[in-house]
Amino acid sequence: MLIKNAHFVLTPKGIEEKKNIVIKDSVIDSVSDSLAGVDKTDDIIDASGFLVIPGLVNAHTHAAMTLFRGYGDDVSLQDWLEKKIFPVEDKLKPKDIYWGSMLGIVEMIKSGTTCFNDMYYFMSEVARVADKSGIRAVLSRGLTDRDGKGEQKLKEVVSEIKSCSDNPRIQWMFGPHAIYTCSEDFLLKIKDLADKHGKKVHMHVSETKKEVDDCLHEKKKRPVEYLEDIGFLSESVIAAHCCWLSDKEIEILLKNKVSVVHNPASNMKLASGICPVTSLLKNNVNVCIGTDGAASNNNLDMFEEMKTTALLQKISTKDTTALKAEDVFRLATVNAAKALGINSGSIEQGKTADLVLLNLKNPALYPLHGQERIISDLVYATPSSAVDTVIIDGKLIMQNRKILTIDEEEIYEKVEDCVSRLFG
Amino acid sequence: MLIKNAHFVLTPKGIEEKKNIVIKDSVIDSVSDSLAGVDKTDDIIDASGFLVIPGLVNAHTHAAMTLFRGYGDDVSLQDWLEKKIFPVEDKLKPKDIYWGSMLGIVEMIKSGTTCFNDMYYFMSEVARVADKSGIRAVLSRGLTDRDGKGEQKLKEVVSEIKSCSDNPRIQWMFGPHAIYTCSEDFLLKIKDLADKHGKKVHMHVSETKKEVDDCLHEKKKRPVEYLEDIGFLSESVIAAHCCWLSDKEIEILLKNKVSVVHNPASNMKLASGICPVTSLLKNNVNVCIGTDGAASNNNLDMFEEMKTTALLQKISTKDTTALKAEDVFRLATVNAAKALGINSGSIEQGKTADLVLLNLKNPALYPLHGQERIISDLVYATPSSAVDTVIIDGKLIMQNRKILTIDEEEIYEKVEDCVSRLFG
Repeated sequence: MLIKNAHFVLTPKGIEEKKNIVIKDSVIDSVSDSLAGVDKTDDIIDASGFLVIPGLVNAHTHAAMTLFRGYGDDVSLQDWLEKKIFPVEDKLKPKDIYWGSMLGIVEMIKSGTTCFNDMYYFMSEVARVADKSGIRAVLSRGLTDRDGKGEQKLKEVVSEIKSCSDNPRIQWMFGPHAIYTCSEDFLLKIKDLADKHGKKVHMHVSETKKEVDDCLHEKKKRPVEYLEDIGFLSESVIAAHCCWLSDKEIEILLKNKVSVVHNPASNMKLASGICPVTSLLKNNVNVCIGTDGAASNNNLDMFEEMKTTALLQKISTKDTTALKAEDVFRLATVNAAKALGINSGSIEQGKTADLVLLNLKNPALYPLHGQERIISDLVYATPSSAVDTVIIDGKLIMQNRKILTIDEEEIYEKVEDCVSRLFG
Repeated sequence: MLIKNAHFVLTPKGIEEKKNIVIKDSVIDSVSDSLAGVDKTDDIIDASGFLVIPGLVNAHTHAAMTLFRGYGDDVSLQDWLEKKIFPVEDKLKPKDIYWGSMLGIVEMIKSGTTCFNDMYYFMSEVARVADKSGIRAVLSRGLTDRDGKGEQKLKEVVSEIKSCSDNPRIQWMFGPHAIYTCSEDFLLKIKDLADKHGKKVHMHVSETKKEVDDCLHEKKKRPVEYLEDIGFLSESVIAAHCCWLSDKEIEILLKNKVSVVHNPASNMKLASGICPVTSLLKNNVNVCIGTDGAASNNNLDMFEEMKTTALLQKISTKDTTALKAEDVFRLATVNAAKALGINSGSIEQGKTADLVLLNLKNPALYPLHGQERIISDLVYATPSSAVDTVIIDGKLIMQNRKILTIDEEEIYEKVEDCVSRLFG
């Protein structure tokens, strides 16, 4: 495939003008002025009015929770979970997960997300949806053992991973839900199993002050200290939220090379707390960004999430220079690729072609003059609707805002069916 | 004009289904199931896949500053003003204001804003643009007297208002910039002049802690106390920002019926502070929302601003129930109409027809099931690109995302010309 004559391309060198991107199979072969090596039979995309950026990576979400969008807003976290979310989650069937995830994936593709890191239930359904839609996915079943069924779930997860491992676009992780829903023994079994299967671990960590207070009360240490002490932490751990970290815990995260996923909209909406992103980055911890589920956000728009990330750090540190636009963009691309272990996140030779073409003919993207502004526009001004074309794994998934792999109309209908049944 | 068979209409009664809205001249004549009184020659808009909401009101902005979008990000407030914004503002010519405001207005119309409250320079240019585009505008020239030219500017403003007063869609205010750029004598002259001409006053108040500290140092009182003491405050005053208010100042604002405009994205990005919106509302102060200028936001998207307003209050008050979705929507519509003295902000008989039709066929707006979710979607999930059709003053201004009154392509070209000259 050839992306020809792009107005701007965002590469590791900065904003480059008037470039061609040659894709061979699923991989970027060249970014240059030249068209050498291009076959006449190649698919050609004319990108003359477009800015080409690496696809955004949503590093923590629960895609199927789009079914609960707007359900249970503006209530306390306790009521949200216990009176709203948990009761309706009990009613979920595999087909709800299928159509809910489908809705989430449509929303993500249309807002420029090319890969998402998902933790939920019935994950083989999510794998089917990722397979069909063409998006890149990293999947983990949320695991708890308070119901005494921990062992059984681990067996199911292992067999789920085995049965769904034929698509290289879909990766698996193990997903212990949190320290307050998993026993120490269960956490260690999960960690062993993950290591044995060469998989990473995706977990909620220190999302609320209550989690930290309860941990201090029960274990006389903070959550990250506890996780280190039991030998749980390593480079393969992805810790979502991390709103409440002591300086010592930041050191522990760095020492163990844990990646942190910041979810600013969810953390603000649920009044959970503020992840110290600026401190984490100063201490060289790998940080990325997630939207969390639509029930606590209430959308899956990574452009919005990048802006919220920047604004929240500036106001909370009282420093306008905190977390510059280029840093934020890196969190949503390069850092996320590193955390998830995927070979994308930047536009350069040898990287997988996960690319997004933004239509520059948008009032919020003018003026175009002054290329250095482009990175600022991406973080502070771009409406996700500027996303015109999406390429994932070298394949054309959306063009002119039409997703080519799935039928949007059918998804909307099926989602209404699911929701009518779930909510009566 | 008839808006027929709307899927949902947001009225003061809540979300109503399958309604027709009859508009006579510029005014809403009825919202009902019936089509009585409709002439066959009327323009008919089929709204069967749409949600109709009152147009959003951007209650504090500087539209022409779209020219400076992305210019001077991530630097200190002092550097931003003195090294970036002030020097380039010195170069501005009337035609820059014309095309910059045009760009801002395109962005606002396309994101569902039907009225904006603008403070800047060369305001007769902004009036021309508002006139041509069809948007509703409230305009004030930003006034300072540190240069010794205060008196002259007041004369110019009076003549500007007189020469541009033939369009009922365009209103004028007086715009003293701030207490730190206007002398006490100048503020009082402006206030007298505004009262004499029956105009309101639009002013920046307590945007930064420095403003408050300096005022305390110089005048031994806080800004709102000072403004009350000099007799400046009244129902006609619209105070933008108000990030730093004591309890006593909140009481003073209420007593004097001052309206407050909250600008969360700008205040976060410039690390100015957090307006205590929740406390102001508890104390019955009229609060509305603005985007501020694109140089400090960096877009003019009121949907985004509503969400940021809600999220910022929840995290800053540590209360998930603070500022519910319906309250936030009221700030952006009814409260703003009250502050600006315009007869719109809600969809009911007798109100001016400033209406926005949102295309419900959008992944971020599903599921539709459960009408009570709609208001939550409007604040937390809606991408501004869902705006399909905009009606202002009973006239069709945008349909199918195409603005009918102005030529977008020409605007983009002219903006590039202006910016090339300004930034070289």
